[in-house]
Amino acid sequence: MLFRGIEEAYYRISNVANKTPIMTSRTLDRLLKLKIFFKCENFQRGGAFKFRGAYNTLSLLSEKQKKKGVITHSSGNHSQAIALSASLLGIKATIVMPKGAPINKINATKSYNAKVVFCDNTLEARINTTEGIIKEENLILIHPYDNDNIINGAGTAAYELIKEIGLLDIVIASIGGGGLISGTALATKGLCPYARIIGVEPSLADDAFRSLKAGHIIPSTYPKTIADGLRTSLCERTFNIIRTYVDEIITVSEIEIVNAMKFLWERMKIIVEPSGAVPLAAILSKKIVLENKKVGVILSGGNIDVEPFFQLLEKKLE
Amino acid sequence: MLFRGIEEAYYRISNVANKTPIMTSRTLDRLLKLKIFFKCENFQRGGAFKFRGAYNTLSLLSEKQKKKGVITHSSGNHSQAIALSASLLGIKATIVMPKGAPINKINATKSYNAKVVFCDNTLEARINTTEGIIKEENLILIHPYDNDNIINGAGTAAYELIKEIGLLDIVIASIGGGGLISGTALATKGLCPYARIIGVEPSLADDAFRSLKAGHIIPSTYPKTIADGLRTSLCERTFNIIRTYVDEIITVSEIEIVNAMKFLWERMKIIVEPSGAVPLAAILSKKIVLENKKVGVILSGGNIDVEPFFQLLEKKLE
Repeated sequence: MLFRGIEEAYYRISNVANKTPIMTSRTLDRLLKLKIFFKCENFQRGGAFKFRGAYNTLSLLSEKQKKKGVITHSSGNHSQAIALSASLLGIKATIVMPKGAPINKINATKSYNAKVVFCDNTLEARINTTEGIIKEENLILIHPYDNDNIINGAGTAAYELIKEIGLLDIVIASIGGGGLISGTALATKGLCPYARIIGVEPSLADDAFRSLKAGHIIPSTYPKTIADGLRTSLCERTFNIIRTYVDEIITVSEIEIVNAMKFLWERMKIIVEPSGAVPLAAILSKKIVLENKKVGVILSGGNIDVEPFFQLLEKKLE
Repeated sequence: MLFRGIEEAYYRISNVANKTPIMTSRTLDRLLKLKIFFKCENFQRGGAFKFRGAYNTLSLLSEKQKKKGVITHSSGNHSQAIALSASLLGIKATIVMPKGAPINKINATKSYNAKVVFCDNTLEARINTTEGIIKEENLILIHPYDNDNIINGAGTAAYELIKEIGLLDIVIASIGGGGLISGTALATKGLCPYARIIGVEPSLADDAFRSLKAGHIIPSTYPKTIADGLRTSLCERTFNIIRTYVDEIITVSEIEIVNAMKFLWERMKIIVEPSGAVPLAAILSKKIVLENKKVGVILSGGNIDVEPFFQLLEKKLE
């Protein structure tokens, strides 16, 4: 039943979402004696897998709900995905963003015609501002991961990967709020039940690792990891899916994340954001035994501010 | 006859070279009211289209020549391509590189088991050092573009693009020594004779533009363009092909190159080096009328030192 949700989401979004390319690296495969298939969601619309869940969820709203308009709060990829999906479906979107959000993400969200409301940089401010607007304007809140339709949408990345490549031995994805890993696990177990599912998170935001050990949710409080997409904590919905379907959770250090990202930029020539490099960080640091395995990796997104690099470059021109 | 050389090169290299992906950008197409297909040679082996010509040329050497070994001088992508191709074919390769070459390019060349010989940073020193070694060791010199087999190999990128996408109205490539644009023009005129061929070069290294106007070769002398792959000048062989088959040459400024590169990184999530962004620079600055056209663009390579960006990033971790 759960798997059917992903299959339905796949057909619902497949004319609108990008069928993202699957990439490989000869160097990596030779180095580690395995075969890795990267599902490159940095090439997804809006620059991250989030578009899949956002579009799936918004297109399932009733006509009445669509007329009301939607709201969400996020400084990151979910905002852009909701703004873009809403714009494609003719729905009014309001996005609450912290004042300190990166300018490129603010501009991207605005470019999709969403109304951006700024708030202070705390989680409380975000929630309070959002609830205030909902009370006044009666908008529909779209939570970034505590939502079955979001999870089903997220699962379509692994679904496409396995449909194209065939059976895999292991599928690896990162864990933030748990939406991506939940969808990935459900899709993978549905298509190749014997595959192992591995979740990876930054040591600085290891709430999933600790929650699973404790048997109940232990949220992260303002984790400082560079992987800004993975600072959120699990909810009951994702915790339960992870507990049931994810075989192992691995944590990686900040420098391991940066090194993995560097490999992707330098050797594979793709822009991946820190959160997207987290699964490869676990692979490169050999925290998982993968030899001779066929491995699927979800590269979640590529929205990183490249401005500092170009400032250096432009200085050279002078 | 010339086109047949490209077709033969295609079959010769197709089991070894990457069939690089063709990418598109909804944003760009909407913005400019056209359809652009990017042939992404940054995903080619060795990080640039150069592998195509290098492998084609080395595999055409006689057994006797292969035993002698090959030599070339270059600080850039041609070196890596020769080193990699030679290693795949079991040929001994010697690469003369200026002391000041970027460390990542030196390391990449060494990693393919080539012998790297350093020389002073002038063109004279490179040629003198190379000629000295040839006299002593009797090696075969592989010129980066004054060579039909290199040009035929370079042409396989456009060949693959048109075979996959179908007829194009315009094909655009950058001009350095003229190998890529020559191969591209020959492949394009062979497959879709009515397509226009446009060459683009930096204003700071506009030797092709000036040479065509003058009717004879006017070399660039130490041009300072950021597009380090395009600092070389035409040779008679490429000048004659360009004169016959290239419809127009356009020049772009340094900041236009950087802005085009930024678009590719930020919006398309691919690492492209300055030389590779030069054709898009001409498109974005609207120096070519392209409305409603089906346009092919060769993105020549992605070998740029990303170290400065990662140094900034690592500082943030501390």
